[in-house]
Amino acid sequence: MIEEKGILFILSGPSGVGKGTVRKALFNQDTDLKYSISMTTREKRPGEKEGVDYFYKSKQDFEQLIKENQLLEYAKYVNNYYGTPREYVEKTLESGYDVFLEIEVQGALQVRENFPEGVFIFLFPPSLEELKNRIVHRGTESQDLVLNRLKEARKEIEMMDKYDYVVVNDDVALAVKKIQAIIQSEHLKRERIAKQYKQLLEDEL
Amino acid sequence: MIEEKGILFILSGPSGVGKGTVRKALFNQDTDLKYSISMTTREKRPGEKEGVDYFYKSKQDFEQLIKENQLLEYAKYVNNYYGTPREYVEKTLESGYDVFLEIEVQGALQVRENFPEGVFIFLFPPSLEELKNRIVHRGTESQDLVLNRLKEARKEIEMMDKYDYVVVNDDVALAVKKIQAIIQSEHLKRERIAKQYKQLLEDEL
Repeated sequence: MIEEKGILFILSGPSGVGKGTVRKALFNQDTDLKYSISMTTREKRPGEKEGVDYFYKSKQDFEQLIKENQLLEYAKYVNNYYGTPREYVEKTLESGYDVFLEIEVQGALQVRENFPEGVFIFLFPPSLEELKNRIVHRGTESQDLVLNRLKEARKEIEMMDKYDYVVVNDDVALAVKKIQAIIQSEHLKRERIAKQYKQLLEDEL
Repeated sequence: MIEEKGILFILSGPSGVGKGTVRKALFNQDTDLKYSISMTTREKRPGEKEGVDYFYKSKQDFEQLIKENQLLEYAKYVNNYYGTPREYVEKTLESGYDVFLEIEVQGALQVRENFPEGVFIFLFPPSLEELKNRIVHRGTESQDLVLNRLKEARKEIEMMDKYDYVVVNDDVALAVKKIQAIIQSEHLKRERIAKQYKQLLEDEL
């Protein structure tokens, strides 16, 4: 009885935490969610489709969109741009679908600035000890490099402060359930739906 | 790995919306929730137990507790006080359990003032038309009385603004699932758990 806009959910977290695995497991279950499609300046590869794998743009067009604040976030890798187009996200939300974006921490912070009404979920490592061991015992690296890596991991985890929810990735299925609970409960928030209910009250009571 | 305080959840909504039914269905599933035990000045009936059915107090003691702001809400019915003791709620939350309180709208508003950190869930009638029909066709009442009842129903529903979540009671099992999602996701809110995660970071990384 209530018509509602979709919500943008952003899943992020430190490198190696398992964001991709959780996202895939979630999409294997939840078919109503739309995955945010990225825009890129890299060339289309055989088998890829415009608007399915990526939106493909020239470098010039991409830079124009950056200027017009038409990207929720973007970055440059190996001389190519990659980003999240605002228009696709907004149109999908308007049509009533939730959009799900899985992204590294720097990108998520850009989205937070450009789209603060999104819901930001931080995926937390199952064990800090394990993370530390992985960093410390990675090989024959200098102690300086190891300390730097620890510092970076720390910084990434401290970015948690910019997020709305924290989900520990100790078990993929459990993490998926928690994210589903977040998605469901965000749709029940009074501030999102009070207007429509009030309209119902005017019309029907 | 994270030690956490419990959360107080308040289920409320207009009279006749089915709060009691939803609460019972929820408690048939979710054994970790503690139901808030009320305090009363009415006499203990045969079979009732102190601290199980109610906390029993003299009128004098109850009024003393009111003065000391030791009740999250209270009301007087048929010359007896009924209320929600703050101490029981706070001790239960401290021990890590969530407390669940099902209460009419006026009581919920008192709790909101005395315990704003609670999570307030508004149960919305499945159909406003049905609610209206029930009020209009209730019998041989005067038109003034009917209009008054409609006005009151409206007012109760407008109190929705004081709540965090709105759940439609169109199906009891579905309403219970939504409330469970709210409970789960509230525990994942960054602001509730960031402190403990930060401590973990200090200790382990």
